Amino acid sequence: MDISKKNCNFAVVFRNTTMKVIILGHGNIGRAAEQALKMAPDMELVGVYHHNDSLADVVADVALVCTPTREVPDYVPQLLKRGICTVDSFDIHQQIYNLKQQFDPLCHSAKAVSIVSAGWDPGSDSMVRALMTALVPEGNMFTNFGPGRSMGHTVAAKAIPGVKDALSMTLPAGKGKHNRHVYIEIEEGYSFEQVKAALLNDDYFAHDYTEVELVSSVEALQTTDHGVHIERNGCCGNKDNQQLDFSMRINNPALTAQFMVSCARAAYRMKHQQRYGAYTTIELAPADLLPGTLEQLVKTFV
Amino acid sequence: MDISKKNCNFAVVFRNTTMKVIILGHGNIGRAAEQALKMAPDMELVGVYHHNDSLADVVADVALVCTPTREVPDYVPQLLKRGICTVDSFDIHQQIYNLKQQFDPLCHSAKAVSIVSAGWDPGSDSMVRALMTALVPEGNMFTNFGPGRSMGHTVAAKAIPGVKDALSMTLPAGKGKHNRHVYIEIEEGYSFEQVKAALLNDDYFAHDYTEVELVSSVEALQTTDHGVHIERNGCCGNKDNQQLDFSMRINNPALTAQFMVSCARAAYRMKHQQRYGAYTTIELAPADLLPGTLEQLVKTFV
Repeated sequence: MDISKKNCNFAVVFRNTTMKVIILGHGNIGRAAEQALKMAPDMELVGVYHHNDSLADVVADVALVCTPTREVPDYVPQLLKRGICTVDSFDIHQQIYNLKQQFDPLCHSAKAVSIVSAGWDPGSDSMVRALMTALVPEGNMFTNFGPGRSMGHTVAAKAIPGVKDALSMTLPAGKGKHNRHVYIEIEEGYSFEQVKAALLNDDYFAHDYTEVELVSSVEALQTTDHGVHIERNGCCGNKDNQQLDFSMRINNPALTAQFMVSCARAAYRMKHQQRYGAYTTIELAPADLLPGTLEQLVKTFV
Repeated sequence: MDISKKNCNFAVVFRNTTMKVIILGHGNIGRAAEQALKMAPDMELVGVYHHNDSLADVVADVALVCTPTREVPDYVPQLLKRGICTVDSFDIHQQIYNLKQQFDPLCHSAKAVSIVSAGWDPGSDSMVRALMTALVPEGNMFTNFGPGRSMGHTVAAKAIPGVKDALSMTLPAGKGKHNRHVYIEIEEGYSFEQVKAALLNDDYFAHDYTEVELVSSVEALQTTDHGVHIERNGCCGNKDNQQLDFSMRINNPALTAQFMVSCARAAYRMKHQQRYGAYTTIELAPADLLPGTLEQLVKTFV
């Protein structure tokens, strides 16, 4: 029997079964993943695991790894070794390829699939950038983030001595450049000017134009709104001025968790097609992210 | 040896070889495909075939089928039977799934890959719609076309008795609705009002708001500019008001041909991964559309 033919039919048949999913980590993303799973017609949430819970008895098809990014490299191998497919939203761009390479042999040994960096950037934006480049192979591309909270910069601001609470907003300044606006509350005994100078000297802030504002309540300014605008202009063949544009305004944890849930579907299907391995989002087909039969999907989206 | 592991490595190795490509049909799309192939670092144009040329001696890895849409179902099987992968831009949405089903067994017999409907709509827009739905699974989606020339409506207008030349523009009227503006020149002996009435009665025009304008030269108004704007608003989990937006302004044949060329790359790779079959664009991974090694692609786009 031709294996590719078997897999092809198998994939179609498989599109309407129920997969068992667990959530590991119950912060913003983990809680949003719980909500996203309620909307998924083909998935069942079978467990929520917290930091330090034992994973020895976990039985599931796919695990959504919603831990802090730096814990992803520790947790994913534990799950893969149990034959459980994984989806994470690891977001340190420079380390993604190595992480994929590290998980890949574990996937092959365990006959599993791991989808790395399946948030929105890295994640769905990566797919958009690759698609835009397939449409317009020569040209300029700009990814503009925000306005929205930068988690990394917020954590860096909070670590400055004298900062009681902080919120660092990323503000798009056009054509891939960004400004930062940092709201801070300060501890008693510190001066604003002193704290501000220390913050502007921090490596996280030293390279972008940054404004610092003293506020009475950072809490009152918190939102989970975010957004992105990806632009690509260039040429196809001998025709220039081809203009492509993608943007979103979103609730950040909800969108991240939803995309992880959609990628869980792809992991499950690829496993059952024996396409074991660790994949980034640009290696996934959009149809594998969606519930329904292939016939339904083609008739709906193509 | 684990076949999936072999394929995985094979795919990476294969990304820098040169594939031999032919063009079948030399109208707007075929000529634009010639230009697009000049920019492709991993492809070589080895032949251009015209209507009625014999395909008996063709040797190539992939054929770009740039014939009129209605000839696609005749030409593709001839190429697949010779083991040549195909890419077409068949654009009759309702017939795409059946076409895929018709080509699929031929692909398996010939160990080939056929990518159907690989223009921009159907084609890249289909991928965008599927991706948007993976991000926001419940909501509304609107595809707004134009302003740009509608080939189908232009042909229909030209067929009205008394029409000497015509150009039907599709004008977006918001939220997936469209108006039409038809420029016509008329033959001697016909009145404008008479021709206009016949045109507005034609089934192609009877269902949309249509304006007809008499001009002295349709030729002077011809452009190949076109565009699309896809909007999706809805919810992820329990968060609504998630807003996604994709748009492009493009030279139509150049973008269509470029995307066919990018899909030729996917066909070639999938064939060498033994993933034989007929695929629509929503079944393709963005990375497979691009030249370069997987490492380069992940580091660039993810």
